[in-house]
Amino acid sequence: MERQPRSGCAINRAVEALGDPWSMLVLRDMMFGDRRHFRELLAGSEEGIASNILAERLRRLVDAGLLVRAEARRGQRAAYTLTESGIQTLPVLVALGNWGLAHREGDPRLRVRAELLRDGGPALVDAMMDELRERHLGVARPDPDAPRPSELLRQAYERAVGDAA
Amino acid sequence: MERQPRSGCAINRAVEALGDPWSMLVLRDMMFGDRRHFRELLAGSEEGIASNILAERLRRLVDAGLLVRAEARRGQRAAYTLTESGIQTLPVLVALGNWGLAHREGDPRLRVRAELLRDGGPALVDAMMDELRERHLGVARPDPDAPRPSELLRQAYERAVGDAA
Repeated sequence: MERQPRSGCAINRAVEALGDPWSMLVLRDMMFGDRRHFRELLAGSEEGIASNILAERLRRLVDAGLLVRAEARRGQRAAYTLTESGIQTLPVLVALGNWGLAHREGDPRLRVRAELLRDGGPALVDAMMDELRERHLGVARPDPDAPRPSELLRQAYERAVGDAA
Repeated sequence: MERQPRSGCAINRAVEALGDPWSMLVLRDMMFGDRRHFRELLAGSEEGIASNILAERLRRLVDAGLLVRAEARRGQRAAYTLTESGIQTLPVLVALGNWGLAHREGDPRLRVRAELLRDGGPALVDAMMDELRERHLGVARPDPDAPRPSELLRQAYERAVGDAA
């Protein structure tokens, strides 16, 4: 369990659960890369997360109630799924991405999805949280015929990779 | 200066500058508590920040371009001011506060300002950034006759403290 909070301020409560660079990046890779397994998160990390740090942050995110670790059955690897409170960290990630886009140089290939989310505004963020609920919690999307935000992000990413090639 | 970033992802660039609990709390106290001096930030910290951590985080925020340290004149203490990129971290703090309000218990006295910012939406966040520009950068607010968001936050806080007494 989490230790006693340092104060009851809402921002403090959030940074105690989330305010760590690697925890944020793990959540990002689960949401935008749909990675569920330890090995995928390790091998796919753009930032080269170390395996002991990844293991510790996954444990911490489970303890904080943002992830659930589904026990592995025989011959299967354990998978992590986002909880509702984990899904609701998306607006924090988007706010961070907006700041990074405005104030730091970046890799065009890696910026394109952040740009799409910035330009899509709160409606796209809400639609993406609905898609994460579908994928991680099994909750049907309010409008099942609407295009999935992940598909828009994938297309934008592939256009950027194509342009860069 | 900041070291070489681990990747060019916009979210990563932001968490490398901001993704540290204490850095976020220092920015919060400068924005919501209007604290400019080391001693104020140390003495007023609800979370009991240690003086060596505060000194290191202030240095890091200056290196990252989020704060400027105004050199002290004879008999004056050095004051810190927010830069434009520092002011633009407010939406990140608000997104964190919204998450904390929704998913963690908190102290009603400390929650009230986060609730006001949540309920005021992007218009109130924009107005608050304008007020921070006025205070830290000397830029006049677009509508000088509009009430200052800090005043609304102060009134809400005092009502909450009064109710609790």
